[in-house]
Amino acid sequence: MSTHNAEDLDKVYSFAIKLARVAGRMLLDSAEQRYIPDGNREVQGLSEKDSSVDIVTKTDEDVESFIKTSIAQQYPEHRFIGEESYSKGASKRYLIDDGPTWCVDPLDGTVNYTHLFPMFCVSIGFVLNSRPIIGVVYAPFLGQLFTARAGHGAWLNEKQRLPLVRDPIPPIPSEAPRNCIFSCEWGKDRRDHPDSNLHRKVESFITMAAEQSGREGKGGMVHGVRCLGSATMDLAYTAMGSFDIWWEGGCWEWDVAAGICILQEAGGLVTAANPPDDVENCSIENAKLGSRLYLAIRPAGPSPNETGRLGQERAVREVWRRVRRLDYTRPGQ
Amino acid sequence: MSTHNAEDLDKVYSFAIKLARVAGRMLLDSAEQRYIPDGNREVQGLSEKDSSVDIVTKTDEDVESFIKTSIAQQYPEHRFIGEESYSKGASKRYLIDDGPTWCVDPLDGTVNYTHLFPMFCVSIGFVLNSRPIIGVVYAPFLGQLFTARAGHGAWLNEKQRLPLVRDPIPPIPSEAPRNCIFSCEWGKDRRDHPDSNLHRKVESFITMAAEQSGREGKGGMVHGVRCLGSATMDLAYTAMGSFDIWWEGGCWEWDVAAGICILQEAGGLVTAANPPDDVENCSIENAKLGSRLYLAIRPAGPSPNETGRLGQERAVREVWRRVRRLDYTRPGQ
Repeated sequence: MSTHNAEDLDKVYSFAIKLARVAGRMLLDSAEQRYIPDGNREVQGLSEKDSSVDIVTKTDEDVESFIKTSIAQQYPEHRFIGEESYSKGASKRYLIDDGPTWCVDPLDGTVNYTHLFPMFCVSIGFVLNSRPIIGVVYAPFLGQLFTARAGHGAWLNEKQRLPLVRDPIPPIPSEAPRNCIFSCEWGKDRRDHPDSNLHRKVESFITMAAEQSGREGKGGMVHGVRCLGSATMDLAYTAMGSFDIWWEGGCWEWDVAAGICILQEAGGLVTAANPPDDVENCSIENAKLGSRLYLAIRPAGPSPNETGRLGQERAVREVWRRVRRLDYTRPGQ
Repeated sequence: MSTHNAEDLDKVYSFAIKLARVAGRMLLDSAEQRYIPDGNREVQGLSEKDSSVDIVTKTDEDVESFIKTSIAQQYPEHRFIGEESYSKGASKRYLIDDGPTWCVDPLDGTVNYTHLFPMFCVSIGFVLNSRPIIGVVYAPFLGQLFTARAGHGAWLNEKQRLPLVRDPIPPIPSEAPRNCIFSCEWGKDRRDHPDSNLHRKVESFITMAAEQSGREGKGGMVHGVRCLGSATMDLAYTAMGSFDIWWEGGCWEWDVAAGICILQEAGGLVTAANPPDDVENCSIENAKLGSRLYLAIRPAGPSPNETGRLGQERAVREVWRRVRRLDYTRPGQ
């Protein structure tokens, strides 16, 4: 089965939300075990480092297992793709085909979760024809549930439509990236040579941040630089309108499937992080789900001079002018 | 009056919490005016950019005025210091003396607030003998209230003691800054020359982040780099134990007074951001409230090899070995 009627998708959507709420509760329960005293709980006697890593790994596995099992019971014909789909050392070839596929990260922002920094979440995407058409992100410590279904908009806590400010939706600032909040991540590639992703990223961050006369006239003078440590939360806040620009490489489809659906349903744009040869004139394509390289622009309304979409495309080109190409590849791409 | 008995301080503490809750509600109400449809509200008809800046400036002033007026009525003998205490162009000399002084930022994280990114808060510090002895931080969008009173610990939402993980409180990682979350801010100084604060900061960030063999053996390989855009929230999350290290220059006493009290009451350490001459052996002093340069370490428990305090001091020296001196001065210091 590779198509779904509206009623089917409605059920898939409700089911995904239910899964995310339970999974988020599991994450929170496990976090609270580490800090809320409870006479019924045994004190572990482990050193904190041991116990936190143990608990996080076990929680990650438990939540993935819960989601995977629940889906297999409800939709035995659907596929499931997540980090655990790739056994250690196996090829990281992109595996999603046109069939109905759940693309899930049971715990996005693992480092944040380990440190109990609230920017962690469960991320559940439902993908059809390799396009995320349902996205549910739940950050239980923040009490924030982001949901979207293709054609039905994106929502915060099932009551507030995204982006938050929408009467009217603000246009992209005329001098973008100036006046924009720029969200980015340092990532795990920390090699210290001029061509490492660490240096490619940080040089790009500096160009985005520097005064406009700086960096040989390329300074972006963004309003602020933000790093949350969760690709999913970055996308959710871009959908909300809090971040204007998110630029990142290195994450996987389960980190972004739900977030991309939410952002697109909110009216945002997701394209490739790496600048093409013809930055000025190339057409702006949607990012490929498995591309590992993403540039997201928040939902935008029209200004007197341009449509919302043209404003977003202008922002994309302005970012491309300022960033280096990142080097994240995978077999088959 | 320059001393207070316990009963007086208890009342000041409750009063500060009440103020923060009302002020936070004012911030949230004003934010919601921008996005929650309400038949009773007139649509402004302004472009979003105009209206958001107008609303934010007015909200900031309204909240400061509410807090200032309330304090003047309740405690007419107390002083009040905030950003508005310094008229435009006036000397930014440090003005806090030994008397009872309220040191307040009605809206910390203004850029976040403008963009509706939830990391904004009201910050209310009460300072005696130039030492913050009461701190209240309320982030209304997140529903997080951080409070502390000298000698009585620090709390989240008045029920959960900080740091969150405390049975036992984890020691500082043995290879710190490795395995630490490093929180920092890009700030407003974006000048693009090798000696600007922008470059001093970013070079320091890179050294903290790079692989351990990198940066001439100084690579810190931190677990993650986070930037929230609010000094107050950085301090609150360091008190919570979410961030291990916060290193920043350029903020003012109203940005940090409440947060420093909360962090110290949680068992954290705040010292100077700039490395002294003798990094290895110098004694580690508390940061001066008006110094504009802060290095904070989260609360830490003992390991088999060292006390919590010694672990924190080790982390301070490891940061100092990796960062450049920042250049933020003020008259009289």
